[in-house]
Amino acid sequence: MLKSYNYSALGSQELQKLITRNADSSNEIGTAVEEIIAEVRTNGDKALLNYAQKFDKVNLSSLFIGFEEIQELASQVEEHEQKALEKAFYNIHKFHLEQLKDEAKVETTSGVTCWRELRPIERVGLYVPGGSAVLPSTFLMLGIPAKIAGCKEIVVCSPPQKNGSINSYIAYCALLLGIKKVYLIGGAQAVAAMAYGTESIPKVDKIFGPGNQYVTKAKTIIQSTTNTAIDMPAGPSEVLVIADSSANPTFVAADLLAQAEHGADSQAVLVSDSQQLIDEVNKQLCLQLDELPRKEIAAKAIENSYAVVTGNLTEAMQFSNLYAPEHLIIETDNYEQLIPEIINAGSVFLGHLTPESAGDYASGTNHTLPTSGYARSYSGVSVDSFVKKITFQHISKAGIKNLGPTVEILAELEGLKAHANAVTVRMKEL
Amino acid sequence: MLKSYNYSALGSQELQKLITRNADSSNEIGTAVEEIIAEVRTNGDKALLNYAQKFDKVNLSSLFIGFEEIQELASQVEEHEQKALEKAFYNIHKFHLEQLKDEAKVETTSGVTCWRELRPIERVGLYVPGGSAVLPSTFLMLGIPAKIAGCKEIVVCSPPQKNGSINSYIAYCALLLGIKKVYLIGGAQAVAAMAYGTESIPKVDKIFGPGNQYVTKAKTIIQSTTNTAIDMPAGPSEVLVIADSSANPTFVAADLLAQAEHGADSQAVLVSDSQQLIDEVNKQLCLQLDELPRKEIAAKAIENSYAVVTGNLTEAMQFSNLYAPEHLIIETDNYEQLIPEIINAGSVFLGHLTPESAGDYASGTNHTLPTSGYARSYSGVSVDSFVKKITFQHISKAGIKNLGPTVEILAELEGLKAHANAVTVRMKEL
Repeated sequence: MLKSYNYSALGSQELQKLITRNADSSNEIGTAVEEIIAEVRTNGDKALLNYAQKFDKVNLSSLFIGFEEIQELASQVEEHEQKALEKAFYNIHKFHLEQLKDEAKVETTSGVTCWRELRPIERVGLYVPGGSAVLPSTFLMLGIPAKIAGCKEIVVCSPPQKNGSINSYIAYCALLLGIKKVYLIGGAQAVAAMAYGTESIPKVDKIFGPGNQYVTKAKTIIQSTTNTAIDMPAGPSEVLVIADSSANPTFVAADLLAQAEHGADSQAVLVSDSQQLIDEVNKQLCLQLDELPRKEIAAKAIENSYAVVTGNLTEAMQFSNLYAPEHLIIETDNYEQLIPEIINAGSVFLGHLTPESAGDYASGTNHTLPTSGYARSYSGVSVDSFVKKITFQHISKAGIKNLGPTVEILAELEGLKAHANAVTVRMKEL
Repeated sequence: MLKSYNYSALGSQELQKLITRNADSSNEIGTAVEEIIAEVRTNGDKALLNYAQKFDKVNLSSLFIGFEEIQELASQVEEHEQKALEKAFYNIHKFHLEQLKDEAKVETTSGVTCWRELRPIERVGLYVPGGSAVLPSTFLMLGIPAKIAGCKEIVVCSPPQKNGSINSYIAYCALLLGIKKVYLIGGAQAVAAMAYGTESIPKVDKIFGPGNQYVTKAKTIIQSTTNTAIDMPAGPSEVLVIADSSANPTFVAADLLAQAEHGADSQAVLVSDSQQLIDEVNKQLCLQLDELPRKEIAAKAIENSYAVVTGNLTEAMQFSNLYAPEHLIIETDNYEQLIPEIINAGSVFLGHLTPESAGDYASGTNHTLPTSGYARSYSGVSVDSFVKKITFQHISKAGIKNLGPTVEILAELEGLKAHANAVTVRMKEL
């Protein structure tokens, strides 16, 4: 049973509390993570081999697996699974390809031409989680935009399995992506290795990918102490479902549980203008929960979740914008009317037949999304995340005549004489 | 005189040393900044008034100036200065408007439609420096893309002048931008106020703008401890000029000095395949330096700078890509041939008549750019920095039939049964 709140009865403090995610416990692990980073920085590969032994319980003979082993592992994937991974690859690729756009040149003043050009980030690091759940889908979600962007060096780290290798699905994704090497490194040590580089692992310019709280903490530290960038801060996954009386309670409950099975700290929020719908969803939650293999985890997440009853759908959208969900599912007949009102969300799923899990795997949109309210300021991962947009400008003789005096005046009023002079010396020689 | 290095003679360690910027000294000030943040968080406006007294030596009666005072101050700006600010506004606006683009919808599988829509970040904070140099140009560079993006709340902080108000140029820019209030807060306390909110200052979702090392440190701390985002990490400004024998040494020297006058920690790097050109630039540096009002600062920055002689322009571009300059000026006749080779740079100035100062003020491109090698992974500020790109998807009956089985297989292979179930319950009811 979801805890239930009445939107109109909520004071601003209660509202604030509801939209605040679980406080990040990762501050407690800061010292441990800092030690790991320092150790990898100092001892490189040796440190990584030690951590594999300590954390992954495996003696590695090599820190990576190469192309032959990848091919061999990939061949173990069953044909229907290969087909499914290929379809996901195709859809994700098709959607992300649309994001790579050239921009027109703009002549801002006669003779002054400005434009932007895309350049790939040269060296990127992808972290593919592989502890309790192995996530080949994440590999595709990070690898495809990196490939489309044209990144020259794509370093992939994933924790070694007990047998000292990687899961066959990860290997199959590597084949699809044309990636010939996967490093067997997990956790904070993988992040440190990619940020500083070791004998075996190349230093990268930006690190992508979700992970447990050690990985997340390491990314945060790296971002503020090195010149390696990160994709975005990450917290537990979450969904907010807006549903009205037109919604199917079975579908809504299934969507909430799909979120809940991710982890006990996941949150699934239901917002509805219909108390009856909420009651029916609660019934369905009990029925469906019982049949899930991960029901303990999901039940804990549901305890951590809630429903909000609003007077109408506009209020429901107001609450959603305050919450700023990673995933927003709108299960109403008239979802189109709500689209313009959406301000803060990572990815939006429209109508009764668009479950989040479609987007998690195969519809084509990216599943690496801002959590914990970061959807107020961050976008999900896209091709944009793997490129820089460099501005260019060219000024002709006519251009410097037209623009020069303006620059001289502005430089003078800011007291920057040498800035003015860079124009003046040119004007003199025209 | 610039120190000089021969590219082909540089070992990898020397090369690494040359491309490494001055180590960030801001770690030393971390404790002071953390105290300021804690104090603002606890005591709000009261803390801000105290810091104005302590750091800005001014007793404020109000923490902001309103529209009437802005209008009055703006009227003090001379007409030719007004015109120059307006021309800069026009060009920056024209260039940035081009960045606001809708994207096409993509049908990835028959019945599965995905697309992205832009939404402004609702509440943004702009920091406009105003200590030793008041920078109205920075106000335009941040305010214009914020306005184009459609940000609902634009909070502007700038340190109070000795008279307890703001500079008239800042006021004129506020008028141009339609901003009716400017907060009189500088330094780390301004960043803290915008990240946490106080009685007078609204909390924002993202903070933009350059500043001294206290501001920079505060932004770094805020980014890793709150859910307020920042535009980018910032360091001292820098330029790299690639010039060959076709370059005019007077222009090149003027460009290096324009960078050098920013601060003693600025860096101006000259890369050329012509030793003669370097020699002539050095002569010009001596001549021009002497006439600058900020010559002490510029001379220190030149000491901190250097020249690199390469065998050809391709090597020059290689060095530039390793350095990843904030500003790259290419003063050669054949600059077009080098464009495809540019990988890492913030903003690029092409040809003999395109000084950096044009882009600093009025050509239209943004001057808030990645420094310290961050151009390897970051872009400069643009309209993109003020929006989120939210992904949307809609799946029809045909779509769920076509895509559903793929999602079920992928969810099963990741062991996420409830994810599969969200599709299965829908397939059953078709």
